[in-house]
Amino acid sequence: MGYDLHEPAVSQGALSPGQLRALCRSGSYRGATAGIAPGFVQTNLVIVPRDWAFEFLLFCQRNPKPCPVIEVLEPGQITPRTAPGSDLRCDLPGYRVYRQGVLTDEPDNLVNLWQDDLVSFLIGCSFSFEAGLIAGGISLRHVNERKNVAMYRTNIACVPAGRLYGPLVVSMRPIKSTDVARAVEISARYPEVHGAPIHVGHPRALGISDLKLPDYGDAVDIRDDELPVFWACGVTPQSVAVASQMPLCITHAPGKMFVTDEAMPR
Amino acid sequence: MGYDLHEPAVSQGALSPGQLRALCRSGSYRGATAGIAPGFVQTNLVIVPRDWAFEFLLFCQRNPKPCPVIEVLEPGQITPRTAPGSDLRCDLPGYRVYRQGVLTDEPDNLVNLWQDDLVSFLIGCSFSFEAGLIAGGISLRHVNERKNVAMYRTNIACVPAGRLYGPLVVSMRPIKSTDVARAVEISARYPEVHGAPIHVGHPRALGISDLKLPDYGDAVDIRDDELPVFWACGVTPQSVAVASQMPLCITHAPGKMFVTDEAMPR
Repeated sequence: MGYDLHEPAVSQGALSPGQLRALCRSGSYRGATAGIAPGFVQTNLVIVPRDWAFEFLLFCQRNPKPCPVIEVLEPGQITPRTAPGSDLRCDLPGYRVYRQGVLTDEPDNLVNLWQDDLVSFLIGCSFSFEAGLIAGGISLRHVNERKNVAMYRTNIACVPAGRLYGPLVVSMRPIKSTDVARAVEISARYPEVHGAPIHVGHPRALGISDLKLPDYGDAVDIRDDELPVFWACGVTPQSVAVASQMPLCITHAPGKMFVTDEAMPR
Repeated sequence: MGYDLHEPAVSQGALSPGQLRALCRSGSYRGATAGIAPGFVQTNLVIVPRDWAFEFLLFCQRNPKPCPVIEVLEPGQITPRTAPGSDLRCDLPGYRVYRQGVLTDEPDNLVNLWQDDLVSFLIGCSFSFEAGLIAGGISLRHVNERKNVAMYRTNIACVPAGRLYGPLVVSMRPIKSTDVARAVEISARYPEVHGAPIHVGHPRALGISDLKLPDYGDAVDIRDDELPVFWACGVTPQSVAVASQMPLCITHAPGKMFVTDEAMPR
């Protein structure tokens, strides 16, 4: 709340994942991470108390398109194997705290909120394959305009797990109609970061009435020669935290991802 | 303990999964399931109390080669989505009960043991791709000789998860050296039932000193023109139950799998 998403702290392409995390930790970077440290796996962050961890992991197992699990940390642990030396409590540009299904806070870090029973889940993010799309000659408007990607709640129900249920969230990228098939082919190579799109072309089929009003992130224009293409999104757990009225669920702020040291496969 | 593995109740190839499950339920079939109902997904069964469910699912997530998750049931539930009308408590040919890491019983069914807090996991079994190997012209000795497959504990430690740790278990099939590459290619198509082998040729590299003495199942001969080929095995959780001294872990008896209604992809 109140941060400028469009403030490149330094020349973005030059940042390594570790440099970006250090900038976040010192409070120097609060922007979205699309286009930052291209070629490295970016992840959504979901943190739940230990007594919700089984149901959340089961939710991921049953909903692998929105929730591909990259890593799960032991209770209380803060340093993923995929980013040695990192600290999940302060190495992201922004966080959200949901209590009883209500967004109650957007803190800069989690240092004061941390509890030893918290279990952290890293879930693949579609920002990870954007470098592949760009290398394939597919232009991405939100990257070019330094915006956050547009995300929407859909009318598609996820498969429930225990007490957890809620609607699928999608990210949307306008793609030239001549490039749609190739965008599908390229993203399909990366199932661990959402893989192929779940829908092409008709937002109303997903229950999205107005693309100009995303539920998370920033709207972008769609030109006449383009189609809106929708990928399953790792913000889905945030819609689930709300729908299921989880007592406590801590996440990244949408679009402000954790960037790991794992290179994307080529 | 004491069952004859080699008692084909009926013409095996003719059995549907539902027919096999009905024979198990009535007590008419207590044999191994290799070669039975070919072309359908067979699974290992692991049942743990609710308060071990997160760690066991996390163990599977961290060890996908031995523990590819096909389905996880809600606590207390007994009928998987992949086999409508079935009952996991009595539709397998045999069960094992581990308490505090000790094999204490091999019951015919779990009806008297059942508790509402038990969570059932179905884990892919390599028997599922054997029909594909046979269709590819690769002969399987344990199927031809109506034996259980040979399984061995290795010196490879699985990735721990919480309180759970233990050695990888493998199944072994003698394969003609001219067929090894094709056996790898065919099984690699099916990652959800262990996929490609983890090792070819040198049992000592896995800490196996004598192939004639399997830890589970039946030994088979290896001929001069053959190599022993090792696949990750869903009996691994049984070695983990022992190593980790789990208070309670209920499983299928090795080789006596749950047969689902899911057809293998071609």
